[in-house]
Amino acid sequence: MIKIYGDIESGNCYKVKLLVSLLGIEHQWEHVNILAGATQTPPFTGMNPNAKIPLLEIAPGAYLSESNAILNYLAEGSCFLPQETLPRARVLQWQFFEQYSHEPYIAVARFIAKYLGLPTVRELEYRSKQVGGKKALGVMEAQLRQTDFLIGDQYTIADISLYAYTHVACDGGFDLTQYPAVERWLRRIEQSDGHLTMADFVARR
Amino acid sequence: MIKIYGDIESGNCYKVKLLVSLLGIEHQWEHVNILAGATQTPPFTGMNPNAKIPLLEIAPGAYLSESNAILNYLAEGSCFLPQETLPRARVLQWQFFEQYSHEPYIAVARFIAKYLGLPTVRELEYRSKQVGGKKALGVMEAQLRQTDFLIGDQYTIADISLYAYTHVACDGGFDLTQYPAVERWLRRIEQSDGHLTMADFVARR
Repeated sequence: MIKIYGDIESGNCYKVKLLVSLLGIEHQWEHVNILAGATQTPPFTGMNPNAKIPLLEIAPGAYLSESNAILNYLAEGSCFLPQETLPRARVLQWQFFEQYSHEPYIAVARFIAKYLGLPTVRELEYRSKQVGGKKALGVMEAQLRQTDFLIGDQYTIADISLYAYTHVACDGGFDLTQYPAVERWLRRIEQSDGHLTMADFVARR
Repeated sequence: MIKIYGDIESGNCYKVKLLVSLLGIEHQWEHVNILAGATQTPPFTGMNPNAKIPLLEIAPGAYLSESNAILNYLAEGSCFLPQETLPRARVLQWQFFEQYSHEPYIAVARFIAKYLGLPTVRELEYRSKQVGGKKALGVMEAQLRQTDFLIGDQYTIADISLYAYTHVACDGGFDLTQYPAVERWLRRIEQSDGHLTMADFVARR
């Protein structure tokens, strides 16, 4: 059985949990306490030298890191990952957008506000994150005005990747009512069979 | 014929140029002047709302952005992208590592030093980028002590992605002699048939 090292309150980990839940993939979930520095310990860096979660253990000693790489691995052959080259590349386009232009703003603003309690020393950084976060939401809004899901009419792992931190963006001070197409897309995902939000998973813990 | 919008002195654009050169893919290269704000103009944001290069025009009006998504698209079926699910996921693992844990430090330090001339107002940021950049090089060093290329003994687009900003990391103040396995890997890539460095492409312009 696969093992996933993660913290369900991290959007990057939640992505993986949502996909395995939707696909019914049997797995063992090993909670890792990031705030207590558990990813920085030698046992953990021995598994992932980049010291980050989520981390997938495919077989004893065989690890795969990076949330979006894990999604691509687990979704292969399922309805969440197209087979054709161009749609696959479009999935990746949105996932790289997520890691470079969305997560560093929206997830980091959320972390500063929700987990650190917005300390004065990080207020300037928090405010600067609002600019990049709004820009990312604007890019999503432009796409979602044209298509139901990010790459067209199919719900893919690109949507899972972007849904993860977008559905909790209010924790980082973002007002989603400014992005009506994004809000409709969140509802569309939430109405899909077997969907669970981050709060749903936290409540089940 | 495909068209690539880019600036060869950007590592993200260089990745794409190197791959099309290695694969002999006929293409039109359209220079975009980032420093002059050319990616922020309405004609450009009409093609890529995220206002970034490189941008691939697959056919008139059909665009693909994000350097690593473009590499995956163009490398499909070639020796630079394995067919099996796990090796492909490992390629992605390194490419997501590159965009999240490597590029934001090494490329940004290079940009501040080489293109902005290390202004006093950005000195603190420049110094903070050294920490993350060294950590990323350490993660690569650990892998490259074990394998010739990032995912094993095969030269893949994961190597192209990481080579891009690593081979010019000295521009950002990084001392690669501290990472001997990384240096050997750079030489290994440079000895491959048809290889061209960023400086080679600049000289041919």
